[in-house]
Amino acid sequence: MPDTVQQHLERDLPAAIERLKQFLSIPSVSTDPAYKPHIATAAKWVCDQLASMGLDAKIHSTRGHPVVLGTTPNPDPDKPTVMFYGHYDVQPADPLDKWSTPPFEPTIKPTADGKGKMLVARGSSDDKGQVACFLEALRAWHHVHGKPPVNVRVLIEGEEEMGSVNLKPFLEAQAANLKGNPKTHFVLISDTAMWDEQTVAITYSLRGLVYYDIQLHNANRDLHSGMFGGVSANPATILTQVLGKLFDENHRVTIPGFYDDVRDIDAHEKAEWDRLGFDEMKNCLQPIGVSTPFGEAGYTTLQRKWARPSCDINGLYGGYGGAGAKTVIPSFAGAKVSFRLAPDQDPRKISEAFEAWLKSQPVHGCRWKITNHGGCRPVITSRDSAFVEAAKRAIRHTTSRDAVLMREGATIPVVADFQGVLGLDSLLIGFGLSDDRLHAPDEKFNLNCFTLGCKTHARLLHELSQI
Amino acid sequence: MPDTVQQHLERDLPAAIERLKQFLSIPSVSTDPAYKPHIATAAKWVCDQLASMGLDAKIHSTRGHPVVLGTTPNPDPDKPTVMFYGHYDVQPADPLDKWSTPPFEPTIKPTADGKGKMLVARGSSDDKGQVACFLEALRAWHHVHGKPPVNVRVLIEGEEEMGSVNLKPFLEAQAANLKGNPKTHFVLISDTAMWDEQTVAITYSLRGLVYYDIQLHNANRDLHSGMFGGVSANPATILTQVLGKLFDENHRVTIPGFYDDVRDIDAHEKAEWDRLGFDEMKNCLQPIGVSTPFGEAGYTTLQRKWARPSCDINGLYGGYGGAGAKTVIPSFAGAKVSFRLAPDQDPRKISEAFEAWLKSQPVHGCRWKITNHGGCRPVITSRDSAFVEAAKRAIRHTTSRDAVLMREGATIPVVADFQGVLGLDSLLIGFGLSDDRLHAPDEKFNLNCFTLGCKTHARLLHELSQI
Repeated sequence: MPDTVQQHLERDLPAAIERLKQFLSIPSVSTDPAYKPHIATAAKWVCDQLASMGLDAKIHSTRGHPVVLGTTPNPDPDKPTVMFYGHYDVQPADPLDKWSTPPFEPTIKPTADGKGKMLVARGSSDDKGQVACFLEALRAWHHVHGKPPVNVRVLIEGEEEMGSVNLKPFLEAQAANLKGNPKTHFVLISDTAMWDEQTVAITYSLRGLVYYDIQLHNANRDLHSGMFGGVSANPATILTQVLGKLFDENHRVTIPGFYDDVRDIDAHEKAEWDRLGFDEMKNCLQPIGVSTPFGEAGYTTLQRKWARPSCDINGLYGGYGGAGAKTVIPSFAGAKVSFRLAPDQDPRKISEAFEAWLKSQPVHGCRWKITNHGGCRPVITSRDSAFVEAAKRAIRHTTSRDAVLMREGATIPVVADFQGVLGLDSLLIGFGLSDDRLHAPDEKFNLNCFTLGCKTHARLLHELSQI
Repeated sequence: MPDTVQQHLERDLPAAIERLKQFLSIPSVSTDPAYKPHIATAAKWVCDQLASMGLDAKIHSTRGHPVVLGTTPNPDPDKPTVMFYGHYDVQPADPLDKWSTPPFEPTIKPTADGKGKMLVARGSSDDKGQVACFLEALRAWHHVHGKPPVNVRVLIEGEEEMGSVNLKPFLEAQAANLKGNPKTHFVLISDTAMWDEQTVAITYSLRGLVYYDIQLHNANRDLHSGMFGGVSANPATILTQVLGKLFDENHRVTIPGFYDDVRDIDAHEKAEWDRLGFDEMKNCLQPIGVSTPFGEAGYTTLQRKWARPSCDINGLYGGYGGAGAKTVIPSFAGAKVSFRLAPDQDPRKISEAFEAWLKSQPVHGCRWKITNHGGCRPVITSRDSAFVEAAKRAIRHTTSRDAVLMREGATIPVVADFQGVLGLDSLLIGFGLSDDRLHAPDEKFNLNCFTLGCKTHARLLHELSQI
């Protein structure tokens, strides 16, 4: 083990934190066109970092936001090649008034337990902080040995938070380059969570996603509820009637065929999960202020979160939502509705089933305007490859604990594309924590996690060089 | 009949329209505190107008927006006294992008049929334009005869569009003054619609109102729908489940006891309404772009609109409603929910029943935050008093047609208060049209209606002097 790399990482930590703060201060919100100039700034920042650690780095334009790609020059054909994937874009920061410090002014604060420090900013954990872990590992290898011990590709995209819609065409167009010379062996991703603050997890399954904006329209204008109340269908009312039927009394989605393809959870996985000692109140609900476990009957909280599909209304809108009273019948009302898909659900089948279900509902003369914001397949990968074994060794070495093999309820759209387009499996080793407030105000990344991420990645590069 | 008054009204019409445009250009939105300075401007404008036509006029402050009061000086004890009521406040103008010209830049345009002209502005019909009809009638009498032929009080308030919450205390405080010396005989109100463009209506019943803001809260922050989808109750989802149960399959409100006190429609009223030749498609739904009649089973469109209670969701909000996709589980979701009440429903009983119903719904650990924005009793008044007969004569004289006696689905909160606090019945003669787009973008008032309103009020003052 090159202890000099680990030692350098420790010495260089203050500078590494400053670099991460620079990265976090760029408001690279991908879904809102108003932030497009900042997207370009973030891509350039990443490209400059990659170049500074000796990689051939380039910004590739797409139909959407650019992809940054860096590759080891003069790769060694006898060494494996790992392709690191991450994203430089972030979720919108609203509601802004719920942040204790501005979302794009990264601030170091004590952690809730007072025992450590954390960096508060949008994107700190998802995913800039985790990208920075790998970049710092590479930088340390570059500083100490002039290059990493294996061949490296780094692919950092800018549309993960809006469904990575343009990455698949990019992968298709660049397939020959990305797969060969040097031949890529697997994809390494840090965009997931640790099992707990001491225990690094290897995530072998992700849920998929289907996301819709649905609107119900009726009158050609907002109406006075006194003059028109009771004479025609109110789209807001009818929308609640339709959405109110999305679940049955067992809190199962009522869309016909929704569960048809869901893969059963293996008995040995269930047993393994039961041994993890997960407490649904302490580990999941209490930290978010929720008093009551709730969800599909017949499954534990962990099973529902990791291996069962879910359906959420992500937003409701229409009519008057301001202060006071406005007696209006809205001309339309809308909802953002999304589904997390379990292996082996197919986003296309689920989309078709949802649209057919919507259209089968009585809407009393109202008209649907349905927008599909894209889908993503769920993923389940190997639990026992040579790369997983290398990762287990690196984690054991860095943390003195065994890795936990877990699933994740969230979606990383590109993982399915790496499998489908490039034939590459992904190894997911994340350094976030479940209380990192992803997509929410006061998102944070513990500095301990950052340090651990840098060190684990540095060690993983070594372990991979020994395969 | 003082034809000179009518002649003066015709000659003075261009100046009257200019005065109305001045009034309409003041953005006196009552429900939004940001508009408070404009409320003061509007009150002063009204007060100045009343003084200019010889009334003792004064602005009275309340806990909310001020009330403007004007009274004939030296009243004649042998003449009846009519109290005209109207409001100088208007609804919010949003959504602004749906207006073809700015809401507070009154603009004269051709009517949809190309045969006449109309004034487009927020408040043009509700209620500034209709207030102006009475003011212009008074002005003409003042100009021609030095004073009106009966004693007059004018009470113009500034909180009608937010429920007239401070007017009742004002009436209570001013009761002795408002009832006597000169003794007030009845209240005259122009805030309703004509039967059609040729036929003036006398409205003898109004629906009441109960208005709520209800919010359902769960987690202490917005959650990532991947990490938390399926493990706790989503307030937006549960809200739709609750609201989806507001109506049964006959589109009747399911709140226990909701219909208990509703007064049946008299057989002779039903027969009278059937003879009006109301076509639900042509007269009601087609103009608003609605293809399908819809509402409580067992009643015609006119019966539902005039004499049956209704329930509407006036707004839905919560979570992400912007462009694109945000995969969030909202920490709360809310709705504006209101009820129009038919005679003899009691707003207090309906409020209690609604809140009890909400609290009886399963919300799976979520918590309600319920705000009652106030209520108003429904009203039903005499169809055959001496004042109604005088109004019929004035309408017959001005339009050469008999008045239609109708009900109205909308609410004028103060009518119930005039009855309850001052013991005064109201006579409702309005000059709006059903396509005036009240509370909506491009609200308008036809200039023919304005002229007719001025002339009818001028003649009514004469008819009242003959009682």
